[in-house]
Amino acid sequence: MTYCCGILVREGLVMMADTRTNAGLDNISTFRKLHIFERREEMVLLLASAGNLSVSQGVIHLLDEGVPDPTDETISTRLVDASSMSVAAHLVGAATRRARAQAAEGMEQSGVNFDVSFLLGGQIGGGAMRLFMIYSAGNAIECTIDTPYFQIGEHKYGKPILDRAISFDMDLYDALKIGLISMDSTMRSNLSVGLPLDFALLRRDALKLELSIRVDASDAYFRDLREQWSKALKAAHTAIPRPPYGGLQDR
Amino acid sequence: MTYCCGILVREGLVMMADTRTNAGLDNISTFRKLHIFERREEMVLLLASAGNLSVSQGVIHLLDEGVPDPTDETISTRLVDASSMSVAAHLVGAATRRARAQAAEGMEQSGVNFDVSFLLGGQIGGGAMRLFMIYSAGNAIECTIDTPYFQIGEHKYGKPILDRAISFDMDLYDALKIGLISMDSTMRSNLSVGLPLDFALLRRDALKLELSIRVDASDAYFRDLREQWSKALKAAHTAIPRPPYGGLQDR
Repeated sequence: MTYCCGILVREGLVMMADTRTNAGLDNISTFRKLHIFERREEMVLLLASAGNLSVSQGVIHLLDEGVPDPTDETISTRLVDASSMSVAAHLVGAATRRARAQAAEGMEQSGVNFDVSFLLGGQIGGGAMRLFMIYSAGNAIECTIDTPYFQIGEHKYGKPILDRAISFDMDLYDALKIGLISMDSTMRSNLSVGLPLDFALLRRDALKLELSIRVDASDAYFRDLREQWSKALKAAHTAIPRPPYGGLQDR
Repeated sequence: MTYCCGILVREGLVMMADTRTNAGLDNISTFRKLHIFERREEMVLLLASAGNLSVSQGVIHLLDEGVPDPTDETISTRLVDASSMSVAAHLVGAATRRARAQAAEGMEQSGVNFDVSFLLGGQIGGGAMRLFMIYSAGNAIECTIDTPYFQIGEHKYGKPILDRAISFDMDLYDALKIGLISMDSTMRSNLSVGLPLDFALLRRDALKLELSIRVDASDAYFRDLREQWSKALKAAHTAIPRPPYGGLQDR
């Protein structure tokens, strides 16, 4: 499994992904799922992937080497050559359809799920900073200020804190903090999401990454965050009075 | 959808269930999913159901009226006549298999999912208080002190708080409180889980219910709990320092 989230606030973009992959519980590996495509000072794109690893790697290869145009296979476009975020999202969708089509015959015969999904965020030149989620079918939806985040993979455990705490006007580093809490909640409840995790932070209009960091178990801030969050949750539920039902108000 | 949880601690048992059912997002109704079977001072059984409503109602009817013995259909046993918790869990399993077999032909043709699952908790006479989860196939697993709770239905949103806060030695009313927080987290993130909710509390060896309560939107304690939990979560993440990555410790 996998957990990735992308948060787009007024100040910029945070994207993060764990690195655990598993083919069954007895076959666990570490693969980077947060990919960076950049032309420094010109564009930065962050792409996080979830789902079948062979298909998502196939998509990354196509985006690196060029996605053939469906109407003219002699023309192909690399992701770093995308002229706008819409074109970039379209390329990821086209690469997804192509990689899935290549994989379909063998995968279907074996009954293997070969769905994939992606988060694509970033900014190209003078265009707007945007965040997309791209589905297995290649279609995409875009993040808006009403719900300024997307998740892919094992999203449920880490969703409540995002629902409660993320707003478009929050500080970018606070958004990073909330993302890390969301990641912690997911890792605690689902063994198939695990450290290390990768995150990147892109300030609006900077056109170069402000942070690109791998967090492992030795990371002091993340260790403190997990411990403080645990303690604070405990203090939070301890502080709520016991239920008074049944006239037992004095309990 | 549905969310039910059962918590079995040293002092006793808490079971709760929401009441929302939906056949599509445009067809939402209220049905009780927490069922009580009792012979006062002799036995109390609490049964929470999730899944296909027609099948789970079929199971309840069989348990009310008697589950025919598969080897001799002239003999049938009602749930209130179960001589032990094991027998009771076995009866729920047998009723589940029977109700699903009756539903199978039509449901399969229509491509409708007719899975169901149950939580069964309680105590019979001098026997031990026990909590079971019964799957669609009719098989059951029993709660133990290492993980003293079960969930059925939409379980993920409400699991982190249970994982962190529930222990076998906790106060029974604290267990109820944590269950209500878990229910709140689920209702916030999944529209198909909704108020009112039903809960019941059974003290070990009491053999009669201490509480059986329906909580709706006007319930003052639950309203306060939701508000306090929200505020406490906000205070908790606000209190954690911003990430220092990138040497920006002074942020």
